[in-house]
Amino acid sequence: MSDTPLAADPPPYFRAHVFVCCNRRQDGHPRGSCAARGSEKLRDYMKVRAKELGLKDVRVNQAGCLDRCEFGPTMVIYPEGVWYRPETPADVDEILEAHLQQGGRVSRLMLTEKDVPPPKSK
Amino acid sequence: MSDTPLAADPPPYFRAHVFVCCNRRQDGHPRGSCAARGSEKLRDYMKVRAKELGLKDVRVNQAGCLDRCEFGPTMVIYPEGVWYRPETPADVDEILEAHLQQGGRVSRLMLTEKDVPPPKSK
Repeated sequence: MSDTPLAADPPPYFRAHVFVCCNRRQDGHPRGSCAARGSEKLRDYMKVRAKELGLKDVRVNQAGCLDRCEFGPTMVIYPEGVWYRPETPADVDEILEAHLQQGGRVSRLMLTEKDVPPPKSK
Repeated sequence: MSDTPLAADPPPYFRAHVFVCCNRRQDGHPRGSCAARGSEKLRDYMKVRAKELGLKDVRVNQAGCLDRCEFGPTMVIYPEGVWYRPETPADVDEILEAHLQQGGRVSRLMLTEKDVPPPKSK
């Protein structure tokens, strides 16, 4: 094997890497989906606002299904692994400013370990 | 502001969260794209193999453009923020086994801080 020790890891490429779930299921699916809940517009807004704020070391990407659909629209910010459920552009602004600019958290929008999907029925 | 201290962060939702760039640019684009370099098949393979290996605390997702196109197909694993450039299913197997199962690294496939795109021409 070509393992190397963790100490050899390169420095972070992005200070913060945001992934916005943009998965879309068919209408009527019992779990719904983040795109059906409006995540694509929030992703677009967040990309534009991050640029306007000059957050050059922050990357905002869309992602496939993050599997917390019931709580969507969902996003996760790494490396800290903090999840949010923004519903409006104002929510996105608050995450950009409080979390990504100031290094804090927006507790009212955070998902916790209690926010898990119901067990699969099959 | 509704900031909360970092100590209040919930535990990690996934032990490892893999994002495989599946962005596709038009043919002939000077930067190319990960999808044009075959990333979608590698994503599909990695999802299937991760399930077969029983890696239930590992999530494999597609992502939009990770902006390291020149080195694609690219993927990044969080929270550690380690980037890889697998070219074949065998490369994906090595990442699954050495990194995601054993907690090591596959140094020959890792991107480093030297792997940056050329400056934008406009």
